[in-house]
Amino acid sequence: MNLSHRLSTIPASPIRKLIPFAEQAKKQGVTVYRLNIGDPDIKTPEVMLTVLRQWDISTISYAQSKGDPEFLSALAWYYQRCGYPFITEHHIQVTSGGSEAIGMAMVAVCNPGDSLLVFEPFYANYQSIALLYDVRLVPIQTSLKNGFHLPDRSTIERYIDETTKGILLCNPNNPTGTVYRKDELTMLVSLAKDRDLFLLSDEVYREFVYDGRTHVSLLSYANELPEQIIVLDSVSKRYSLCGARLGALISINKELLDGVLRIAQGRLSSGFVDQKMAAKLVNVPDSYMQRVREEYEQRRNVVYEGLRSINGVGIHKPEGAFYTVVSLPVENAEMFCQWLLTDFRLEQETVMLAPANGFYLSEGKGKNEVRLAYVLEIPKLKRAIQILAKALDAW
Amino acid sequence: MNLSHRLSTIPASPIRKLIPFAEQAKKQGVTVYRLNIGDPDIKTPEVMLTVLRQWDISTISYAQSKGDPEFLSALAWYYQRCGYPFITEHHIQVTSGGSEAIGMAMVAVCNPGDSLLVFEPFYANYQSIALLYDVRLVPIQTSLKNGFHLPDRSTIERYIDETTKGILLCNPNNPTGTVYRKDELTMLVSLAKDRDLFLLSDEVYREFVYDGRTHVSLLSYANELPEQIIVLDSVSKRYSLCGARLGALISINKELLDGVLRIAQGRLSSGFVDQKMAAKLVNVPDSYMQRVREEYEQRRNVVYEGLRSINGVGIHKPEGAFYTVVSLPVENAEMFCQWLLTDFRLEQETVMLAPANGFYLSEGKGKNEVRLAYVLEIPKLKRAIQILAKALDAW
Repeated sequence: MNLSHRLSTIPASPIRKLIPFAEQAKKQGVTVYRLNIGDPDIKTPEVMLTVLRQWDISTISYAQSKGDPEFLSALAWYYQRCGYPFITEHHIQVTSGGSEAIGMAMVAVCNPGDSLLVFEPFYANYQSIALLYDVRLVPIQTSLKNGFHLPDRSTIERYIDETTKGILLCNPNNPTGTVYRKDELTMLVSLAKDRDLFLLSDEVYREFVYDGRTHVSLLSYANELPEQIIVLDSVSKRYSLCGARLGALISINKELLDGVLRIAQGRLSSGFVDQKMAAKLVNVPDSYMQRVREEYEQRRNVVYEGLRSINGVGIHKPEGAFYTVVSLPVENAEMFCQWLLTDFRLEQETVMLAPANGFYLSEGKGKNEVRLAYVLEIPKLKRAIQILAKALDAW
Repeated sequence: MNLSHRLSTIPASPIRKLIPFAEQAKKQGVTVYRLNIGDPDIKTPEVMLTVLRQWDISTISYAQSKGDPEFLSALAWYYQRCGYPFITEHHIQVTSGGSEAIGMAMVAVCNPGDSLLVFEPFYANYQSIALLYDVRLVPIQTSLKNGFHLPDRSTIERYIDETTKGILLCNPNNPTGTVYRKDELTMLVSLAKDRDLFLLSDEVYREFVYDGRTHVSLLSYANELPEQIIVLDSVSKRYSLCGARLGALISINKELLDGVLRIAQGRLSSGFVDQKMAAKLVNVPDSYMQRVREEYEQRRNVVYEGLRSINGVGIHKPEGAFYTVVSLPVENAEMFCQWLLTDFRLEQETVMLAPANGFYLSEGKGKNEVRLAYVLEIPKLKRAIQILAKALDAW
């Protein structure tokens, strides 16, 4: 009995594949500082947890396929408040996590065998999801040297062929922490217009931008390019609701939304309880998001200053999200990351990182790089960086 | 800008596409008895709702990709109790609804372009899901005349070609209410063994079997055909948790489970709160499921007796689940269903049904049939059948 070839091509998550080694270390009584995964330690807003505690609905029924009306209306309110007054409930499809929104957008624009351009390194799960739907991702290099910003238009155009249906971008970027400037986005929009491409913009870290930057959403260009812009979103990071599995696909292309709703009907609905909880985003005080942003900016500073003081570590100053890709003075970062978990201990403590090669599709790229998520409290982050420095000495 | 052809092929849900007409009727003050969708009105077990009310975890984090350990262990306990002591946590992948389990199984066994055999009429979303993954469903007719039971082996074999990777069945069956006998399942297992096919067995209605029947799960054959049997499940119907979006894929094929876990990592996790809630299935008293089963059996009796007394209605006695497909003395059941919502009223009341043509892939089949879900209390069911009888008179 042969399983499908397709199944064998789906990669293990670079974020999660070292977990067994971490579990082993934990069993040995070792403290593992987890910088591998972007699972925030910040508290979920109280007003959302209160929905659970005051639960009084006696049957947990299907929600509507498009989304629970209360949650849809809360999302519309949110985008209007972000500065996009033309976004209403009609333009939003609720999804089971940002992950599902990515898959739906891929299916909506690609037939089997079609391709999307992505900027490398990129969020590893884009590839896992693309493989499910027989969509080919075509990587375009960005590099640490210029902070992983976009290449110029002519470079991007060289990758377009007859299978190219669109460009998938992540802004603020996971894994690099780069926030694209307005001129970069304007270039992409103009390119998409001229070459008839869809723009799939994953903006789940929208609120996490530092140093006084403002995030430019592709929603700003929605009226200019009404059929071609698809924004992918998630409440996971914004409200520390990773386990709520709720995201959204936003577009003003009605035909696309109708099609996406048919896909959504095929899986009935997203979680009812989660949507009732997340709908309370309208009552989350502005101070919550501000405090969270400040906390991450401080953590970013600690990580940046800490890492750049280590000999041989290459880092750019992350501009947003809560990740960064850094180069290490090692030949094989994956082996180094594994060794951290299996062998290295500093006073019974060690660090877990995500090898960055899993964020590249191009063979051999990112071999000496790792992705760090700064989702720990500052004292822990400082200690983790201290451990990493010692480990690099010992390696 | 062209959206994908694939998107345009995904059908609207036959269960949900008449909803706008129902909403319209409701706005006119009309009571609509909804027999179109299997969204139970039974209360979720109290012990599950209590998990919400006593919620004390302050961050809603990702669950593990394979499933929350507590929920996995509860599921293993459940299957062991069903009579499959060899099923442990290792053999279970938690999914976001039974829907996701179906998709994962399809990807695991089919490359793009491969096909699965299904018995027609079949759960309409199989087709929506298959289209996403470029899997072709090949329908094999079953008919009302013999209670939608399986055709003989030689008939099934005629549909096998080099693209056939497996057989997808639903037992107890949605939409027909048929429960396959042991001899039918043994025939399928023997066929799968001889012809090297996977068996994908959707058993989400496992507990809903009537007249003293016992449900035969394909898990009974797992040791005989260890690599080829995949059971798809859901907690939705069993515990009135449709909105919890939790299901499972069960197999003893390790390579398949490893691959499916990689797919699961690509979408991070299923809902954390939902899993914590559903894990309490171990504390649901046996009397809960027994009471639910009895309630549905009584409803089944009401529907069966009520409908067969209407002139021109063709019905078999449903053996399980809470659906049945009946033939009506109308030429076009879809138009009739729409007319029920837009035009027909009996004392300001009407009925919503699902046209059965959406449960067939073969052109022109099921045109005079509807699917009924008996998920209303008995007095309401009786009234709904009375309305249907009058409507058929008037049509």
